[in-house]
Amino acid sequence: MLPAPVMQIAQEEFLNYRNSGMSVMEMSHRGGYFQEILDRSLINIRKLLNIPDSYEVIFCSGGATAQFTSIPMNLLDENETAAYSLTGVWSNKAYQEAKRFYPNVVSIFDGKLSNFSEIPELTDLSIPKNSKYAYITSNNTIYGTRYSRFPKLSIPLIADMTSDILSRELDVSSFGVIFAGAQKNIGPSGLSICIIRKDLLHERKSAIPVILDWRVTAKAGSLYNTPPTYSIYMAGLVFEWLLEMGGLSSIEKINEKKASLVYNALDESEFYRTFVPQANRSIMNVVFHLKDSNLDSKFVEESEKYGLIGLKGYRDVGGMRASIYNAMPLEGVERLVSFLKDFEKRWA
Amino acid sequence: MLPAPVMQIAQEEFLNYRNSGMSVMEMSHRGGYFQEILDRSLINIRKLLNIPDSYEVIFCSGGATAQFTSIPMNLLDENETAAYSLTGVWSNKAYQEAKRFYPNVVSIFDGKLSNFSEIPELTDLSIPKNSKYAYITSNNTIYGTRYSRFPKLSIPLIADMTSDILSRELDVSSFGVIFAGAQKNIGPSGLSICIIRKDLLHERKSAIPVILDWRVTAKAGSLYNTPPTYSIYMAGLVFEWLLEMGGLSSIEKINEKKASLVYNALDESEFYRTFVPQANRSIMNVVFHLKDSNLDSKFVEESEKYGLIGLKGYRDVGGMRASIYNAMPLEGVERLVSFLKDFEKRWA
Repeated sequence: MLPAPVMQIAQEEFLNYRNSGMSVMEMSHRGGYFQEILDRSLINIRKLLNIPDSYEVIFCSGGATAQFTSIPMNLLDENETAAYSLTGVWSNKAYQEAKRFYPNVVSIFDGKLSNFSEIPELTDLSIPKNSKYAYITSNNTIYGTRYSRFPKLSIPLIADMTSDILSRELDVSSFGVIFAGAQKNIGPSGLSICIIRKDLLHERKSAIPVILDWRVTAKAGSLYNTPPTYSIYMAGLVFEWLLEMGGLSSIEKINEKKASLVYNALDESEFYRTFVPQANRSIMNVVFHLKDSNLDSKFVEESEKYGLIGLKGYRDVGGMRASIYNAMPLEGVERLVSFLKDFEKRWA
Repeated sequence: MLPAPVMQIAQEEFLNYRNSGMSVMEMSHRGGYFQEILDRSLINIRKLLNIPDSYEVIFCSGGATAQFTSIPMNLLDENETAAYSLTGVWSNKAYQEAKRFYPNVVSIFDGKLSNFSEIPELTDLSIPKNSKYAYITSNNTIYGTRYSRFPKLSIPLIADMTSDILSRELDVSSFGVIFAGAQKNIGPSGLSICIIRKDLLHERKSAIPVILDWRVTAKAGSLYNTPPTYSIYMAGLVFEWLLEMGGLSSIEKINEKKASLVYNALDESEFYRTFVPQANRSIMNVVFHLKDSNLDSKFVEESEKYGLIGLKGYRDVGGMRASIYNAMPLEGVERLVSFLKDFEKRWA
């Protein structure tokens, strides 16, 4: 879901961007119009996240999956190691991918032992001394958990924030690298954004595929190859929308409110339950179960009729999942809560 | 440039795709609506290019630059070699990238010796015996050349067709792999399409970054990771537009006509010239020079006022370049020709 006002603007200027006579989709990435769109997007994400000058911000082709390889290739030399905290499907994928090229990387936490309901408290003590970085997924879409606070470590902390970037205030300076696929809170799929502490942009001993090499992209101002221009434009509109709303402190308050409406409804009920401990609850993805799982398909069927799309949980987890990203308005969440109560009344 | 009727449809259904209540941009790539869009796109490109069942067709994230690495990684094992025909900037980039990982790859033709105006006649004799594939760029945007006929070789022929795919009829069965970044004749940037002879989808001895591994993408039906969904949708609309126009034989006739209008105007004139031999002339990019290069900036300035955007040639080549991709209507080309004549009349 993308914010309604953003979609409105995009539709209006779809055929003719600001009297250029062209769609943004048709513009050369080397032309003045697109350069201005790119520059403005970068300035605005810096403003939103208050990104220090000591960090590079780049747009990359592809989503988080590409970064799963970029991370170790840009940060490790052969035989070096890094520490992965496995709190869900995506951190596991990132870890497996790193291990194929750098077999010495290690897992320092395995959520499997708690059915992925737990988030660890990481400290320097939890991390092998020779690790070059520690890797986390800030928010776990499938299990509905998140790091409510981020660890403070003496080695660079790398965070996949695909599913909660721009949803809450953030101290960028406590991270080495933050990256995010665009498709949850930023814009259309096929784009990712990387925020990289400049001192981590080393040359590596082994060759890195050019498309995965942050240094190449950074040096060329995200224009080494033709970037996903339209997605960058849409991301820029989303950044402007967030700034107009008052920035991340404002959207965080709204997101907190949206999430507590749903969690309160679940906690008050004997009919639904959630396994995620209070401290780790995601404000983007609320994962819950009907106590009687025989009612699951009925629940999904009726919710769709009620205009609530995509509530069915991930296949390996079962149950339900309400994704309430930035673009979901409060009214959408209120509608969900009223459906939850109504369904319970009729089927309890 | 994208076809006007395609842009019209896309704008109309931008906020609400076929009464789904959603934009295509907002749809889950795992949902029924997007699956149908993806399936239809794949069926239609197969129809357009008459692709045999023995070929896999996949959509990949990123453009040709990503494929420059994918090609050798998917087709070579360590120490193996392949033969690159260097007819322009892009084949050089592909070659340089391959050489970083497979130092034994060789160049079998270097256009530099003819200022990139020549296209070689490749035969098995031109290629070292142990080569696993031969690599070409079918059309060279910057130099305005193309392979008018394609070589018949006993090893797989790999072609980067980014700048002329879908512009002319093609016998797919004479290629091992055809790939193309979308941004010229297919759709928005950030997407590429690969057509791969199935027997070339080997497992390799060294690990391939998952995002660059064709087998992974093929096995998952282009849905291993979140693909650039909106770009695939736009590509699908372009495929439908081409089919409605009568397919590639029709568009080829139109493209031939458009190109000859421009080349005839240049050939008839003493004021302009083109260095590209008749046999190698691109029908997508017409590269030409004013005999008096002092008039170059005047030419660009006046052409822009006349509504002709982007005529300035590539910086290393100088002169002018008219890009007349599929979406450029005949009227646009006629306008260019009338400007050429008018400018000549006034400045000759």
